[in-house]
Amino acid sequence: MASGIFLGRFQPFHNGHLEMVAKAQAEVDELIIVIGSAEKSFVEDNPFTAGERMTMILETIALSDWENIIVVPIRDLGRYGLWVHHLEDMLPKFSIVFSSDGPTIALFQEKGYRVKTFDMKNRQVLSGTAIREIMALGNPTWEEHVPLGTKKVINEIEGVDRVKHMRR
Amino acid sequence: MASGIFLGRFQPFHNGHLEMVAKAQAEVDELIIVIGSAEKSFVEDNPFTAGERMTMILETIALSDWENIIVVPIRDLGRYGLWVHHLEDMLPKFSIVFSSDGPTIALFQEKGYRVKTFDMKNRQVLSGTAIREIMALGNPTWEEHVPLGTKKVINEIEGVDRVKHMRR
Amino acid sequence: MASGIFLGRFQPFHNGHLEMVAKAQAEVDELIIVIGSAEKSFVEDNPFTAGERMTMILETIALSDWENIIVVPIRDLGRYGLWVHHLEDMLPKFSIVFSSDGPTIALFQEKGYRVKTFDMKNRQVLSGTAIREIMALGNPTWEEHVPLGTKKVINEIEGVDRVKHMRR
Amino acid sequence: MASGIFLGRFQPFHNGHLEMVAKAQAEVDELIIVIGSAEKSFVEDNPFTAGERMTMILETIALSDWENIIVVPIRDLGRYGLWVHHLEDMLPKFSIVFSSDGPTIALFQEKGYRVKTFDMKNRQVLSGTAIREIMALGNPTWEEHVPLGTKKVINEIEGVDRVKHMRR
Amino acid sequence: MASGIFLGRFQPFHNGHLEMVAKAQAEVDELIIVIGSAEKSFVEDNPFTAGERMTMILETIALSDWENIIVVPIRDLGRYGLWVHHLEDMLPKFSIVFSSDGPTIALFQEKGYRVKTFDMKNRQVLSGTAIREIMALGNPTWEEHVPLGTKKVINEIEGVDRVKHMRR
Amino acid sequence: MASGIFLGRFQPFHNGHLEMVAKAQAEVDELIIVIGSAEKSFVEDNPFTAGERMTMILETIALSDWENIIVVPIRDLGRYGLWVHHLEDMLPKFSIVFSSDGPTIALFQEKGYRVKTFDMKNRQVLSGTAIREIMALGNPTWEEHVPLGTKKVINEIEGVDRVKHMRR
Repeated sequence: MASGIFLGRFQPFHNGHLEMVAKAQAEVDELIIVIGSAEKSFVEDNPFTAGERMTMILETIALSDWENIIVVPIRDLGRYGLWVHHLEDMLPKFSIVFSSDGPTIALFQEKGYRVKTFDMKNRQVLSGTAIREIMALGNPTWEEHVPLGTKKVINEIEGVDRVKHMRR
Repeated sequence: MASGIFLGRFQPFHNGHLEMVAKAQAEVDELIIVIGSAEKSFVEDNPFTAGERMTMILETIALSDWENIIVVPIRDLGRYGLWVHHLEDMLPKFSIVFSSDGPTIALFQEKGYRVKTFDMKNRQVLSGTAIREIMALGNPTWEEHVPLGTKKVINEIEGVDRVKHMRR
Repeated sequence: MASGIFLGRFQPFHNGHLEMVAKAQAEVDELIIVIGSAEKSFVEDNPFTAGERMTMILETIALSDWENIIVVPIRDLGRYGLWVHHLEDMLPKFSIVFSSDGPTIALFQEKGYRVKTFDMKNRQVLSGTAIREIMALGNPTWEEHVPLGTKKVINEIEGVDRVKHMRR
Repeated sequence: MASGIFLGRFQPFHNGHLEMVAKAQAEVDELIIVIGSAEKSFVEDNPFTAGERMTMILETIALSDWENIIVVPIRDLGRYGLWVHHLEDMLPKFSIVFSSDGPTIALFQEKGYRVKTFDMKNRQVLSGTAIREIMALGNPTWEEHVPLGTKKVINEIEGVDRVKHMRR
Repeated sequence: MASGIFLGRFQPFHNGHLEMVAKAQAEVDELIIVIGSAEKSFVEDNPFTAGERMTMILETIALSDWENIIVVPIRDLGRYGLWVHHLEDMLPKFSIVFSSDGPTIALFQEKGYRVKTFDMKNRQVLSGTAIREIMALGNPTWEEHVPLGTKKVINEIEGVDRVKHMRR
Repeated sequence: MASGIFLGRFQPFHNGHLEMVAKAQAEVDELIIVIGSAEKSFVEDNPFTAGERMTMILETIALSDWENIIVVPIRDLGRYGLWVHHLEDMLPKFSIVFSSDGPTIALFQEKGYRVKTFDMKNRQVLSGTAIREIMALGNPTWEEHVPLGTKKVINEIEGVDRVKHMRR
């Protein structure tokens, strides 16, 4: 059984992530979505808690017909040289890594993993940073760039206000 | 939607745990199984990694017809006074806590949670400690006390040998 | 009894802080001054130790007639999502939070606290950053912006030299 | 000005501690009561939070006529070889250490401090361990061994129940 | 070039260790002596600092004609599942592990290392625990069980007194 | 016996470092080269592991006729106010500190150490930052600025690729 991991911070989980999950889950028997920097929240670059991000993803998956996806929050270790081993220790066995982040790709490749990367369309808009910027400006178009599950969570927790207040 | 958490270290996941999961998942819309002390492994009281324990549980659930269960490994915080808040931060919202551990029950009750407890039959045999003891003695009857998923994982990783070697 | 906390890093404790303490202590029965990032010292943005900062504040209070003030150094937790609970765990009960920092205000408000904020006069000069800048330039006017207690401590520890040397 | 520190975990703050504080404060201009293992709570040996222990002490001092006492919660460092330096970093300058614990006395003496020790009367009863044992048995005589401030806090937080529940 | 590591806490470095170092260094081109639990000191089971233990070993080696030995203090990680990778990250490449500790042997073998073990003569006397016991009793025969380098360091730092004082 | 320490991160160990080691070792009986931030690797500013950096230095020393040098990797403590004491705890006794970094010099001087500094020729080229920049550009002249031991290690681990990939 081929198992893969998809790594991200998901601040918030947006349509670019969703597109990658769609492709990744089609290539493996089981896909583990790893919510990185799980311990970070209530700061400018990481406004949402791991629980909130997990809910965004689970609510989005619940609306799909995908059945082979697991979501796991993982706290940072502060040791990139041990990061791959840390994930091997904390997660079920995996053999493929999905990522579009250069250093992450290199790190897993040095440890012998097969890494698959995706070209993201509209990278400029479809990034967590860009979407938080739109939210901070009070522009309601952020809703166009995230799936329904994310929109629902952000509205419930008044997440736009949080993004605004965490700005320095 | 009522959501609940079931807390344990699952060293290993055994039939007593399975019985409690069966009851708990029937009472909630979503059950989150929290693998505590996720960072601990390769020591006498905690021989199995979080990834191995997660696999035991996932393989067992895959053989059931339960569809409302999530499994999440959580590292210790070393702060019991913040433990409940730590779980609130890391997990989707939950309102019920399932546990048969006295201090855990008290901790969540002080923070205002509704806690449900179970009488476990055969507590003497159905404990992780007792099962590891049987394994360390080289007695094959440990297999009678764990579900198929756990048996499969322990055999694949030669877990009986590991339990023996970690003894001091 | 109404109890309040006033949060800051106090690098160093200056006249702006003093003005806020004066107002805050008049509104509560007990005021707890929390020295944040207590573990940080001997770096450019945080030159003074928690002990030195505590002494600056205690010596200043000793010259006042306020009798309802407590000073407590608190180390960072690295978890903003748990920060409010961390303070609840480490301090006597409090119900009011005094702060002029946007993210801090939002964080406590999300957790249900009443937060009072102050307009600081001369914010440009009365900030720790601005005062350290003046010290680093060798300009003796820094003394005009801090209370006697702070001046005394900085002179005793040759703090101006330390601020200069920690520059990169 | 001679300043001293008095170290303890204060689980809970009892009459033996009070007797030592009385003697210690009479010998120095300023006494800093350090609440050690501040991060520990909700476990068998350390049931009370730092905030609760701080309140026990402050309420007790408020009933005395002592005016030279400061109370500071300090989290463990996990490095006994750096412990003395850690306290020097976190606290105002001190020159005398009050303690009745052998290893603590030796540690400060090796670093060149003057340590004063006390013979505690009724050591068997007047220890945190003994008092928690009495509480766990449901015996109301624990109240005889603690000052009013401690009694008040424990009753407010239903501390006897907590002590009972944390037993394993 | 074959390189090996020899792991221990060396509290203190004794003749049993010396005998094993002698054998191990003869089998490899380079031997790295790893001082484990380097951060622990001034407690009953770990009285000596990493610096003191390093000096015991270096002074002993200086009296030998061995030239292929390196000594490295390593702080604990609190993650046995990552311990082997942690050493791979912190040390020059090694291929052989020398140890007489069961769990350590199993841990390195699971990760694919070749482990060599030794039968220690007089294990009952030649253990750190036994030697600290003799020291605590004020019995001067501890000197017979340690090399000159260790004896010299312990006398210089008045280590016998420290061992006595750390007893609880 | 005069013993000294030379502190650096050595990302990578270059000719400027080598020149300073040459001078420093001539002034002391024993020189301890401390590899700082040992836990950092696989990131832009710190691409090489402690083990790799240690090998660069050991291979370089092996080509010299210096016999009084020890190399020790030390993980960060996150407490500059305790940094000097941390090194005293982890290392054999030392009395001289060699450094060309302003804050480090000031930190040791405040704690009473004798610090010796060097003027580095060609500081602009001979810095880790500058050399990593040259490597990232794919310019082979980086080899001119490092000793043979460093060149050998970087080529073996394909370190130029790593430096390129860690860029963000």
